[in-house]
Amino acid sequence: MKHVPVHVSLITVIEIVAILVGALSGFVEARRKRMDIVGVFTVAFIAAFGGGTLRDILLDKRPLFWVQHQEYAILIFVLALVATPLMRTVRQIISERVIVVADATGLGLFTAASVAQAQAAEMPMFIAAMMGVITGIFGGVLRDIVCNEVPMVFRDGKPYAICAFFGAWLYIGLQYTDVSEDFALWTSAAFITILRLVTWKFDLHLKSHQ
Amino acid sequence: MKHVPVHVSLITVIEIVAILVGALSGFVEARRKRMDIVGVFTVAFIAAFGGGTLRDILLDKRPLFWVQHQEYAILIFVLALVATPLMRTVRQIISERVIVVADATGLGLFTAASVAQAQAAEMPMFIAAMMGVITGIFGGVLRDIVCNEVPMVFRDGKPYAICAFFGAWLYIGLQYTDVSEDFALWTSAAFITILRLVTWKFDLHLKSHQ
Amino acid sequence: MKHVPVHVSLITVIEIVAILVGALSGFVEARRKRMDIVGVFTVAFIAAFGGGTLRDILLDKRPLFWVQHQEYAILIFVLALVATPLMRTVRQIISERVIVVADATGLGLFTAASVAQAQAAEMPMFIAAMMGVITGIFGGVLRDIVCNEVPMVFRDGKPYAICAFFGAWLYIGLQYTDVSEDFALWTSAAFITILRLVTWKFDLHLKSHQ
Repeated sequence: MKHVPVHVSLITVIEIVAILVGALSGFVEARRKRMDIVGVFTVAFIAAFGGGTLRDILLDKRPLFWVQHQEYAILIFVLALVATPLMRTVRQIISERVIVVADATGLGLFTAASVAQAQAAEMPMFIAAMMGVITGIFGGVLRDIVCNEVPMVFRDGKPYAICAFFGAWLYIGLQYTDVSEDFALWTSAAFITILRLVTWKFDLHLKSHQ
Repeated sequence: MKHVPVHVSLITVIEIVAILVGALSGFVEARRKRMDIVGVFTVAFIAAFGGGTLRDILLDKRPLFWVQHQEYAILIFVLALVATPLMRTVRQIISERVIVVADATGLGLFTAASVAQAQAAEMPMFIAAMMGVITGIFGGVLRDIVCNEVPMVFRDGKPYAICAFFGAWLYIGLQYTDVSEDFALWTSAAFITILRLVTWKFDLHLKSHQ
Repeated sequence: MKHVPVHVSLITVIEIVAILVGALSGFVEARRKRMDIVGVFTVAFIAAFGGGTLRDILLDKRPLFWVQHQEYAILIFVLALVATPLMRTVRQIISERVIVVADATGLGLFTAASVAQAQAAEMPMFIAAMMGVITGIFGGVLRDIVCNEVPMVFRDGKPYAICAFFGAWLYIGLQYTDVSEDFALWTSAAFITILRLVTWKFDLHLKSHQ
């Protein structure tokens, strides 16, 4: 395995924010289904960590991210205990805009980092790109399956997975240039984030399959 | 891996009973969905072994329990062939009380044994407790997902997972005392079983997330 | 691991056809749910590769088939881009009969090959037979779960899994005779295919569980 470059402090902040945004989407969905605390915690946990866990199972990589960092599981557990007042507060003090930005940032970072990992594990290119997208979207897919819904990301037409897919190929393409791995990682992460925000701003949608 | 202590004969009996209770819940659900024999067997199998299988996949432990003990898969297969008359008989000769006791006993045993396994695999504490609960509840969760239902354990408010969670922490706490591992295992298994029966007797429920 | 015998060119053709039939079933289902391109690709991919992937995860075998052969993932991706006109064409030029034959051939080949693999990995007999059936049917099961349906194969009464199951035992039985592994593989694959076609021709069904 090649060394995957990271800037620990900044990454950690983005990571926590992205996990919180994932968990938050789980709280919303679990609430809609009138789940109890067990469901609220589990659905939030799956929304936050499902994508990365599926990627690691497919790549046979262990220990899993959340097994090594139990502090994240504990954080979601504590938030689940106060999910009802928490959600009310979140809606009052945080605008949708902030959540979309945080989510897009997480998508960019996790996709780029996953493509890097998949390439380090010597996956072929197209599969490495797929692994990046899986990490970005399957938390939401598994959340929706557990909540007995057709996954949103497969039908809402928001080009979430598409942004991740293009950014994954940018990362792969940059490997053929002279730029450093660090530069490739940050550039493609930023590209995905910006592309997602632009498509959100202009409300661009995919057609559904007719 | 540390040695996980077991009393083979008694454990084997509890194991079989717990597997049968799990399979039974699958028969009930498959019947409600008017499945054929393939569905009846598969749903019963998933209900009985899904939790332990998910735990082993997350821990990357192989061979899986049911792969090593094909007699359990064969037992469920034979029962699935006679599921219709079997269920009628079960309802006539076995009261709900017996099934709840068997189920609670299985929950206690499997949770405690899974926490022991997760600790032997050097999981951090909170994750070890989660692995115990996952083993206890995810058979039912996967059964409900396959049957296209929102998992009961996430919304019925029965403190099933909560009892397992407290018992998992009792096991972990006992590791810091002088008691033997055997004692810790049986005490926490018994604690979970009794706690589940008490909450059932007094019909205690969790609130749903409003 | 024992050597699993293969005739590369013929197997490759059958493999591609079987993957296309699986992907096609995903296109149909994704279309019914009005999914966008992301959903169409993912559901088709899961329908084509879900069964083999689950088997490999249960056996802890890596790399996964589609990770080593990215050309298949790319093929499904390209087809997903043209799924709408493609499906119209398929319906015009390919009769249901052709699709059933292709599907039955794939079922025979993949089941027999999976049983061979599971036996090479020293699974007990009943489990090896189960692994064969899982490979044959879980692509469709996972497709239906993602599409929020009760899996067809569990309730439509078509003896799809049953044919695979009998053929798996034929393969296992032939190991106790003097015939070569090649012969055992092809005989049981052909047996499954023919049995499936016969049950289709005469419209034989399993009873649902009442």
